[in-house]
Amino acid sequence: MEQGKINEDKFRRSAVSVEEAQAKVLAHVRPAESELVPILEAGHRVLASDVQAPHPFPHFRRSGMDGYAIHSLDTKGCHSGQPVQLEVIDEIPCGSLPSASVGWGTASRIMTGAKVPDEADAVIMLEMTEAIEQDGKRYILIKREVEPGKNITPAGFELAEGDLIMEKGRRVGPGEVSVLATFGIHQVPVARKPRVAVFSTGSELLAIDEPLQDGRIRNSNTYMLVHQIREAGGEPYMLEAIEDDLSVARQRVKEAFAEYDIVITTGGVSVGDYDIMAELVREQSLEMLFNKVMMRPGSVTTAAVKEGKLLFALSGNPGACFVGCELFVRPFIGAMLGSREPFLPKFQAVLGRTYAKVNNFTRFVRGSLAFEDGRLVAYPASLDESSVMITIKDSDVLIVIPPTNQGVQAGQLVDVLMLPGGSRG
Amino acid sequence: MEQGKINEDKFRRSAVSVEEAQAKVLAHVRPAESELVPILEAGHRVLASDVQAPHPFPHFRRSGMDGYAIHSLDTKGCHSGQPVQLEVIDEIPCGSLPSASVGWGTASRIMTGAKVPDEADAVIMLEMTEAIEQDGKRYILIKREVEPGKNITPAGFELAEGDLIMEKGRRVGPGEVSVLATFGIHQVPVARKPRVAVFSTGSELLAIDEPLQDGRIRNSNTYMLVHQIREAGGEPYMLEAIEDDLSVARQRVKEAFAEYDIVITTGGVSVGDYDIMAELVREQSLEMLFNKVMMRPGSVTTAAVKEGKLLFALSGNPGACFVGCELFVRPFIGAMLGSREPFLPKFQAVLGRTYAKVNNFTRFVRGSLAFEDGRLVAYPASLDESSVMITIKDSDVLIVIPPTNQGVQAGQLVDVLMLPGGSRG
Repeated sequence: MEQGKINEDKFRRSAVSVEEAQAKVLAHVRPAESELVPILEAGHRVLASDVQAPHPFPHFRRSGMDGYAIHSLDTKGCHSGQPVQLEVIDEIPCGSLPSASVGWGTASRIMTGAKVPDEADAVIMLEMTEAIEQDGKRYILIKREVEPGKNITPAGFELAEGDLIMEKGRRVGPGEVSVLATFGIHQVPVARKPRVAVFSTGSELLAIDEPLQDGRIRNSNTYMLVHQIREAGGEPYMLEAIEDDLSVARQRVKEAFAEYDIVITTGGVSVGDYDIMAELVREQSLEMLFNKVMMRPGSVTTAAVKEGKLLFALSGNPGACFVGCELFVRPFIGAMLGSREPFLPKFQAVLGRTYAKVNNFTRFVRGSLAFEDGRLVAYPASLDESSVMITIKDSDVLIVIPPTNQGVQAGQLVDVLMLPGGSRG
Repeated sequence: MEQGKINEDKFRRSAVSVEEAQAKVLAHVRPAESELVPILEAGHRVLASDVQAPHPFPHFRRSGMDGYAIHSLDTKGCHSGQPVQLEVIDEIPCGSLPSASVGWGTASRIMTGAKVPDEADAVIMLEMTEAIEQDGKRYILIKREVEPGKNITPAGFELAEGDLIMEKGRRVGPGEVSVLATFGIHQVPVARKPRVAVFSTGSELLAIDEPLQDGRIRNSNTYMLVHQIREAGGEPYMLEAIEDDLSVARQRVKEAFAEYDIVITTGGVSVGDYDIMAELVREQSLEMLFNKVMMRPGSVTTAAVKEGKLLFALSGNPGACFVGCELFVRPFIGAMLGSREPFLPKFQAVLGRTYAKVNNFTRFVRGSLAFEDGRLVAYPASLDESSVMITIKDSDVLIVIPPTNQGVQAGQLVDVLMLPGGSRG
């Protein structure tokens, strides 16, 4: 047992606040390059540049109703006792152009969304007309005056050519796709996904498909991280676990830096023995950003930088690993993508149950969110240690419990960080 | 112009409520089959069966601290003036098994998460001990009594073998992945994604990559629908647009029913001329579920069923198409997947700005959500017609404005339906 492995000296760690740690990480962001992707693949990607309207919208004078395009002056003075009669000389379905000129005393049947003939200055609703036939010709009767411009949307009414339609940094959803398609933008400029290498560390971990062994647990963090990274907008690559050997770890991390934008490890950062990642980060080859954060769980979360690439050494504890990824990796990826909101959305909610655990670090407690009478109520997922593993799946939010020596009472307002909606389907 | 195409008779449509229409649709759900997918691909999928714990968790007696495994009785009566001295006879890193028996008067150095030797009944924190060496042997001094069970998590403490860990119908996110991996479930039983055919209809539509033409607009709805369907958990297939010809439409829809689980069309359902989809649904070959819904936009939303497969004929208006998909297609897909919550999440919020538009149908208004002092406030995206296209991208929620003849005042509570978070990155 005494083969030089025991090291009971603690590494000197000076804790920084979460905000300070986030700022240190974000100071090293290098914006991702831009690439064009087909619109069908653009979902959840982040726009790499502003998008301007390539043409006005609508780009032609559009009918807002099913009815007839007319000269409004033709209706002047008419009323139910003295209707005006107009000859129907054309029919304009959507997508067609007028085939006849609307002169005085005539009307063109027109569909919602079709182009209004240039000569016409109003559209009267179908329901407000009466159709008649005389001598094989078709006419309509109109019994009330129609204002000029009625039921016509002018060209450029909604947007002029060159107007900003979407800003750089916006994430593309179905609504964005609708607008992009409307303007014919079928190749969408988006930020290239940062490539993220994920290592597990620690020779104690069983592979996910190995049979259970006494005293050993399975690698679950790297699988979780793969999904968290995807949700944050990165492209994860799961690399073979690093065994507890400093020179191997050094070499593997170096290789990963050459190929990926971000390197994440889990485990091996506690102050116990065999603390490979902590040792690695203390070496001169990396610039350590922080190795202790004033938060629970995950106080040993560590980050280092080398030539503009980030190493995140996350805790091996699943709950701490999850939080470390959401608080530090997510915003780093988001900032690389140029996202307008790289952090988890933060807002206030009412604490649904008293949280009595005291700590002098800020605690991020997994919880669920309820909407009660127009108020947000956040319930901690567990109040004790009996369900620390299983509740990781039951989290809508992270509830922020500030440093406290008496807990936080139910009914108090707390900050909550909204997690992406994975578990609410 | 008079080639038998004009048909100014309105189709008889009797309107049903949104809830009634949803119930009619859900009555025809056929549960999707189950399939196994690798855990790395399971994100956002819906569990097809309950998942039970294949083993207890933890599956061995686990140390909750970095420290020493001891016999608690050895510490009986000790205090700072009379410490007990134990010989350190083993060292147990995570993933290793004890290599020596902890007898009376001895202790094993143990790491957080490692297996506690069977003989030991407590773990004392490293920080509460003092290490000394005598005659080449290592000892610790303990200065206070330790209770039996201290810092030991019993096997099965969190879950027993066979305990339900996740229910059928749950959507898989990073937390679910963590739990599945912990239990070695690397092939995940999920519901097969419903295959959804998406047609655009209407010969007026330009392809997205065609140059602009006067009087014509581009097909944007099918692109939007592809992304909405993916978010809802379906697998969209974009089919060539159906031109305005009833016999062609009949044939194309028949072919699509043979190959897909759901068929969606957009356009061609208004009460204007050339109403191909409405005509098709009126035929005897399909069972019409509804062809008018008491809602705005999208009152002409139509659904029909044939041999358990659903046809949704959505409005050609982008805003109405969006709403129709979220209100009817989404829950149908979700229900096929067995999702516990197939509908958009619904809750109450305070209306942020007066919405004055009156209607005797329920209106679904796109809006954004703000969190102000622990209250949810919903702001309509637009109050007039000047931005009906562009605001489709600015929607966190659909605000439900009930039938009203005087609008809804700012400050009143309204129901809101939460949209998936596409536009908030």
